[in-house]
Amino acid sequence: MTLDPARLAPMANAIRALSMDAVQAANSGHPGMPMGMADVATVLFSKYLKFDPKAPDWPDRDRFVLSAGHGSMLIYSLLYLSGYEQPTIGDIANFRQLGSPCAGHPENFLLPGVECTTGPLGQGLAMAVGMAIAERHLNAVHGDEAVDHHTWTIAGDGCLMEGVNHEAIGLAGHLGLGKLKVLWDSNRITIDGSTALSTCEEIPARYRAAGWHTLVCDGHDYADIDRALGEAAALDDKPVLVECRTVIGRGAPNKQGTSSVHGAALGADEVAAARKELGWTAEPFVVPDAILADWRKTGERGAALRAEWEQRASGRDLGVVNVPSGVLDDYIAKLLAEPKKVATRKASEMALEVLTDAVPAMIGGSADLTGSNNTKTSSTGPLTAEDYAGRYLYYGIREFGMACAMNGMALHGGVIPYGGTFLIFSDYCRNAVRLSALQETRAVYVFTHDSIGLGEDGPTHQPVEQLMSLRLIPNLNVFRPCDTIETAECWALALGDTDTPSVLALSRQNLPQLRTEGGNLSARGAYRLRNAGTERKVVLIATGSEVEVACAVADALEAEGIGADVVSMPCMELFETQDASYRADVFPDDVLKVSIEAGSTMGWERYTGTNGLQIGLDRFGASAPAEDLFRKFGFTADAIVPKIKAKLGI
Amino acid sequence: MTLDPARLAPMANAIRALSMDAVQAANSGHPGMPMGMADVATVLFSKYLKFDPKAPDWPDRDRFVLSAGHGSMLIYSLLYLSGYEQPTIGDIANFRQLGSPCAGHPENFLLPGVECTTGPLGQGLAMAVGMAIAERHLNAVHGDEAVDHHTWTIAGDGCLMEGVNHEAIGLAGHLGLGKLKVLWDSNRITIDGSTALSTCEEIPARYRAAGWHTLVCDGHDYADIDRALGEAAALDDKPVLVECRTVIGRGAPNKQGTSSVHGAALGADEVAAARKELGWTAEPFVVPDAILADWRKTGERGAALRAEWEQRASGRDLGVVNVPSGVLDDYIAKLLAEPKKVATRKASEMALEVLTDAVPAMIGGSADLTGSNNTKTSSTGPLTAEDYAGRYLYYGIREFGMACAMNGMALHGGVIPYGGTFLIFSDYCRNAVRLSALQETRAVYVFTHDSIGLGEDGPTHQPVEQLMSLRLIPNLNVFRPCDTIETAECWALALGDTDTPSVLALSRQNLPQLRTEGGNLSARGAYRLRNAGTERKVVLIATGSEVEVACAVADALEAEGIGADVVSMPCMELFETQDASYRADVFPDDVLKVSIEAGSTMGWERYTGTNGLQIGLDRFGASAPAEDLFRKFGFTADAIVPKIKAKLGI
Repeated sequence: MTLDPARLAPMANAIRALSMDAVQAANSGHPGMPMGMADVATVLFSKYLKFDPKAPDWPDRDRFVLSAGHGSMLIYSLLYLSGYEQPTIGDIANFRQLGSPCAGHPENFLLPGVECTTGPLGQGLAMAVGMAIAERHLNAVHGDEAVDHHTWTIAGDGCLMEGVNHEAIGLAGHLGLGKLKVLWDSNRITIDGSTALSTCEEIPARYRAAGWHTLVCDGHDYADIDRALGEAAALDDKPVLVECRTVIGRGAPNKQGTSSVHGAALGADEVAAARKELGWTAEPFVVPDAILADWRKTGERGAALRAEWEQRASGRDLGVVNVPSGVLDDYIAKLLAEPKKVATRKASEMALEVLTDAVPAMIGGSADLTGSNNTKTSSTGPLTAEDYAGRYLYYGIREFGMACAMNGMALHGGVIPYGGTFLIFSDYCRNAVRLSALQETRAVYVFTHDSIGLGEDGPTHQPVEQLMSLRLIPNLNVFRPCDTIETAECWALALGDTDTPSVLALSRQNLPQLRTEGGNLSARGAYRLRNAGTERKVVLIATGSEVEVACAVADALEAEGIGADVVSMPCMELFETQDASYRADVFPDDVLKVSIEAGSTMGWERYTGTNGLQIGLDRFGASAPAEDLFRKFGFTADAIVPKIKAKLGI
Repeated sequence: MTLDPARLAPMANAIRALSMDAVQAANSGHPGMPMGMADVATVLFSKYLKFDPKAPDWPDRDRFVLSAGHGSMLIYSLLYLSGYEQPTIGDIANFRQLGSPCAGHPENFLLPGVECTTGPLGQGLAMAVGMAIAERHLNAVHGDEAVDHHTWTIAGDGCLMEGVNHEAIGLAGHLGLGKLKVLWDSNRITIDGSTALSTCEEIPARYRAAGWHTLVCDGHDYADIDRALGEAAALDDKPVLVECRTVIGRGAPNKQGTSSVHGAALGADEVAAARKELGWTAEPFVVPDAILADWRKTGERGAALRAEWEQRASGRDLGVVNVPSGVLDDYIAKLLAEPKKVATRKASEMALEVLTDAVPAMIGGSADLTGSNNTKTSSTGPLTAEDYAGRYLYYGIREFGMACAMNGMALHGGVIPYGGTFLIFSDYCRNAVRLSALQETRAVYVFTHDSIGLGEDGPTHQPVEQLMSLRLIPNLNVFRPCDTIETAECWALALGDTDTPSVLALSRQNLPQLRTEGGNLSARGAYRLRNAGTERKVVLIATGSEVEVACAVADALEAEGIGADVVSMPCMELFETQDASYRADVFPDDVLKVSIEAGSTMGWERYTGTNGLQIGLDRFGASAPAEDLFRKFGFTADAIVPKIKAKLGI
């Protein structure tokens, strides 16, 4: 198919006009990037991208990721012009206003066709890597006839400068993800000015060092763009970077090529000058019929392809995978019959053995801590460039890249990603965990070594504030199970919620099996594990490894005639969704409530009240064997019981 | 100076013996790296490193950074052998035990000679970049006679795979930091096994693409190491990467070269085999006198150099810089006389104008948000490869790299770093902020756009949980000033505390000047900004931009005869250090307490009690103008007053 520049130019200018008009109306936004990449995007959508606006969820569509999410008007323009039901032109006119799906940055949960939420730089490309992994894996499992598509990504200089870019492209290069194509908007302008202010890097050389192909084109010459995208599409042994040399804000005659066009409205004068420059005479938010018709034709290219695909591949399980409920029931019954004293990271491995056997869609991995995170099971062989059918990723020492890839896999559909690192290194991937939550993905984070209980590695490796700080992220379930049973229950809950990511915070050290009855009690978030033997004076609330401590405290109190409940609280978030009467029953008003968790105390007042006791750790840890640390920092019955008695005035 | 391999081999074996014995005694630790890099480190310390164990704080010493911090026994061995006062051999025998300064990972606050705390991979090298920046800057200011030293770094495959490595080396290459030398322990083994499991990257090519020289040597051939380090020392126009090809665990005959030697004790049998292999017959923790004498001689090399330096450069201000107290007094007096309604990010810029003029040691910067963070002042010209005397760093889109560089600069001494990004992207550098706190550095983070008040950029850019989650980090002061006066006060507090890093969370939107009196009230952490006009029934507690909202709420309540205090709380951490009577006076027991902060409510119960009200945001934000969002999410007097009245039963 030959492209006609005479038709492409007005199509590209429609993007430019909508972008500058929308930003102008909002008096806020980023016109420079959409105007600069309008020509490349027009060629991509007109000829290369496999998509059907009438079926945004078609599993074998090409994925299009706008990693440079601040240029959101580019994707809103493309979706509108090519014929998606949303956004409407009214939505675009309401760009960045309350209620418009055209938010400041593209949000997957607001608009079909937006494959992932971008804006936090670097992560879009890194999620595209995850999508490309999912694609190759599903291709290996289901065959070319069912899954065979590209992942196209537009990334800016900022995406490439972020650290996560190194992790993402290293992983992609290693896995030989030839279906991944990155179009780099090489305009050499960032917010502060020229990229020469802050970097001298030869970017293509770095990509080649990471195992990529690199190409280059003039991002405003349709024939050259067409050539480069054609070459990129054909190269399938390695991922491809196409340097598209562009002028930021192309079309705004006085501001283009400068940082002033990056992140602010052009102003009425410059908009007028640009309309003149582009020969664009239509009113704001009006696209002339002939141009719109050309755009709609590009949107219709995919319909026949999709129809053929539906014929040959319908019924494949390529979307949201449902995990059979009860999949762990037999395993839990066996544990109740034969209790095990193991670390919860080991308990997680035991549960994963059952789960990964029963749920072929699960793809595991670890950021180089496989033997510590216990994430690999006998049914998950390595996923490699030689065997994409594998189900275990050696992510390397790339926590952020891993988390982004997991988001990309989850968003792609057809797979359920889980991945591990130490809880402390959740700090390294924290914004990706946040994006899991914002994007409503079912990513499961296996964060082991969850307290000073990891011992000798010391304060650099001992999470203190991480548990509570992860709990602060909206729409994220943070599970901290206390034994084998709760670990299995939490895994079941994590996999059962398709719209909420989960963190499993797991111990390095062995823990006794405390639960003696079945039923998924963890689903309540918190529950009474032990009832006071005598009149209840105290409720002890603990999570994870400190539930054992709470039981020891209860034993000591009961021995002195002080009745004490033990409440295990594996998931605060689920507890918050319980009704008031249940919550009041677990945490009654009239008794002393004591929280025990080897981490920040802030936040625990919600459950203990300010008159209760919060036993925790509001300082950095230390390097020593775990038992010494628990003693040093007061996580023993000997240290806690006197505090409780003092509070009770006994 | 020619090195004698016959003397070097036993010296290197002393490192090997101490490392394997210490790890064996602790039954925990990482013998592989120290044994693998023993030869390279011995050559470095014997000939190249400029240091004086008798004066670990000598400002012009070479900096030695063990970025691969898990190999901590390498640096403990080197410090002991070369004659530092600490660690003693007893400390080494107590490796990883409570009270030993030989912690699992090297900690700068436990041992002189440990330049920075490492273990979280990638950050040591990135801090070394900061040290090298500080060195070149101080050299430009004070001349060769006062400051002229190298920064030597040992980094492993893991350090190089982390995303922050890309940011760090890009910055170093751009700034042409020729005094920075990175010795890469290229053993091609990580925890999971061969690096081939997870990467195919050509690392030297990547470094060259970033503007580095690259060299290679056989890490077990002394002559070749000597040659490479000599070449590295001589190359001073660009930073240098030396690939040291080593065998991990060299000397352990059955385990070397495998991941089994990475992170676990060798076991008694393998230790015995290694002693045989190395010809090491001394008892554990004994270094034969002749070998120790050779080591001590290497430690004495620096004494004369230091003495000469003291002669020619004494009295320079190259250590901890003291900021004159009262430096902002005149400025604050002027503000009180002529109040200004500006965003606190703008108020920060105004304070910085005064500060950077008065304190030449301050070096500012931003991760490509200079005009948004308002971090650049008229006295801070760009610090570039052409002009190291500049005081402003265009860090590029490298938040993590920036924070690490700031830590390195602060640890180097002689400079006070501050740097900016959006508060949401504190997520990207969170572990470096944590390391600022753990390392007790005076790094000042200027985090602007601190709430939904940033408006249209939407939920990807709107911090919700970040404020509270930063407050959870021990030894970090999180300031959220409400107006120009508090902003100046918080800057004064941040610069006045040499052992605690600070975060300044600043608004994008304009805020009225609420303070009408001087005295650094922010030093109390929280204080009564307005007294109830009638009988006090309510205490409103707010921070930053919500103090204005609290004042509006108070007005509305007072109009209805309900007395309400307004407490501004710019710093929870400082409030926690106040005595009980002050705290009880600010937050009396007998009234309704209401917190208002446009972020997570969890944690506020500490001040409101569970019977109080916590007005906050426990969900993600949205894209819209700020006023619309404040209205939508209930941060208006109209929305809050009825809740308070309901609570009061009025």
